[in-house]
Amino acid sequence: MSVKIRAAIVGYGNIGKSVFEAIESSPDFELAGIVRRTVSVDNVPKELSGVTVTDDIGKLEHVDVAILCAPTRKIAETAKKILALGINTVDSYDIHGSIWELREELGAAAKSGNAVSIISAGWDPGSDSIVRALLESIAPKGITYTNFGPGMSMGHTVAVKAIEGVKNALSMTIPLGTGIHRRMVYVEIEKGADFKKVENDIKTDAYFVKDETHVFLVESVDNLKDMGHGVQLIRKGVSGKTQNQLFEFNMKINNPALTAQILVACARATFKQNPGAYTMIEIPMIDMLYGEKEDLIRRLV
Amino acid sequence: MSVKIRAAIVGYGNIGKSVFEAIESSPDFELAGIVRRTVSVDNVPKELSGVTVTDDIGKLEHVDVAILCAPTRKIAETAKKILALGINTVDSYDIHGSIWELREELGAAAKSGNAVSIISAGWDPGSDSIVRALLESIAPKGITYTNFGPGMSMGHTVAVKAIEGVKNALSMTIPLGTGIHRRMVYVEIEKGADFKKVENDIKTDAYFVKDETHVFLVESVDNLKDMGHGVQLIRKGVSGKTQNQLFEFNMKINNPALTAQILVACARATFKQNPGAYTMIEIPMIDMLYGEKEDLIRRLV
Repeated sequence: MSVKIRAAIVGYGNIGKSVFEAIESSPDFELAGIVRRTVSVDNVPKELSGVTVTDDIGKLEHVDVAILCAPTRKIAETAKKILALGINTVDSYDIHGSIWELREELGAAAKSGNAVSIISAGWDPGSDSIVRALLESIAPKGITYTNFGPGMSMGHTVAVKAIEGVKNALSMTIPLGTGIHRRMVYVEIEKGADFKKVENDIKTDAYFVKDETHVFLVESVDNLKDMGHGVQLIRKGVSGKTQNQLFEFNMKINNPALTAQILVACARATFKQNPGAYTMIEIPMIDMLYGEKEDLIRRLV
Repeated sequence: MSVKIRAAIVGYGNIGKSVFEAIESSPDFELAGIVRRTVSVDNVPKELSGVTVTDDIGKLEHVDVAILCAPTRKIAETAKKILALGINTVDSYDIHGSIWELREELGAAAKSGNAVSIISAGWDPGSDSIVRALLESIAPKGITYTNFGPGMSMGHTVAVKAIEGVKNALSMTIPLGTGIHRRMVYVEIEKGADFKKVENDIKTDAYFVKDETHVFLVESVDNLKDMGHGVQLIRKGVSGKTQNQLFEFNMKINNPALTAQILVACARATFKQNPGAYTMIEIPMIDMLYGEKEDLIRRLV
């Protein structure tokens, strides 16, 4: 490891761009370069002038950690190749049902590459997971509700875009409390498409069928887009034998900026763990922070 | 270590009583016994029938961890003796200015006893510290305000009781936002004492002189006492280069019950650490939880 942590950004979409800013803002990091699937002289954004952009992480000069900003379904394959090079990885893999499986898969790859991987390092899964784990440890009996939004759901938006007749779409998640959500769907449709049919196809799609869903025909979806998001996490539980312990965690945030900052914090934390793969609830909070241990403990504990 | 974690409770005041309940409610713990300064047949509360109560932890049969519920100023001395026996300790030491020093002192004792000590395991310092560390890691620039109350302040109440002419007292902490607090002080005074003088002595005491303080003469302080407390922790900060990231953590809790549950969760976590002393921001959240790693990750991440 160099004096500064040398990080590569793998993938340069919304999250990758925000990771670029988070690295520039972190005193202990420097950018080793950016890895994109296709590299041409034409597709280099102006903020990247002077930055090495390549299609192969092996071409970058000394990389300590790769921050994976590729789509979730590409994470396992991408991470395994990089871990095999002995380079740490972080990702914000977000399919809740298969996080354990990814951890097993990358855990083996990390150990054999003598590297560390921190997975699902975003806000949910991620920082919300830490709050859920904390609240369950301090009030073990009870129910936690995670209420998302208002904000854009990437998964639901992609599902709408896949429906026939839809030209562009935006699905907003609106929290109704107790983990119940309303879906507000805005669509542009193809010439000649039947809005009533599109509306019905959306409402009966597996992503939407169980939720209260409203579909609106709009002139421009892009004019409605905003990267803000939010969470309200509520727990009412029991500490020992004492009922009615009340907890609430709220945030209103720029979504890619928060995810990117969490990725960078976890990239820092990879250097404090033994080889293997970890979720965020398995790493100490202090490892995510920049600064001297004594100062952090004096200031934050 | 036995199949269950055998814990001793050291000190049996408000916190100790709640720890007794939290141990009874934890499937992986069993009570080894209770250590009190003075033990007589007369001072055994009825819930402790059948429980070994002693003045020496060495007299209890096999102890894995000692949960220290003694006053903060007795923690260092008490913990060092127990760590020397190779028994893990947890405490809720709460003097923010000297947590680092306690960590150094108990760290040396723990290493030489081949044991683990988790210090300042309460809600502030403690679970609030985890939230502060989390929020600083995900939005590194910005200000965090910790607003306490409404709830009883032990430190301020003790300070009032020490003032001449005061027979009994209660000092409530009221949050005014941005870390500023009002003090509502309720006093019973000695026969012949001058309330105006008592009021002035309180308001000019070092504990109160910087805060808005109101003093009330009451018939019965005990009738006003309630163990509820609260916190509102606010951070507005910057992730990467994105301003105005907004976070809020609120809780309304029974104070000794929450502290006790956190002590028990940290007692569990001691068995996952290498010998030494730790604050809560230095231990992974998952170590505080009861259950199998796979299940916890599937359920909480």
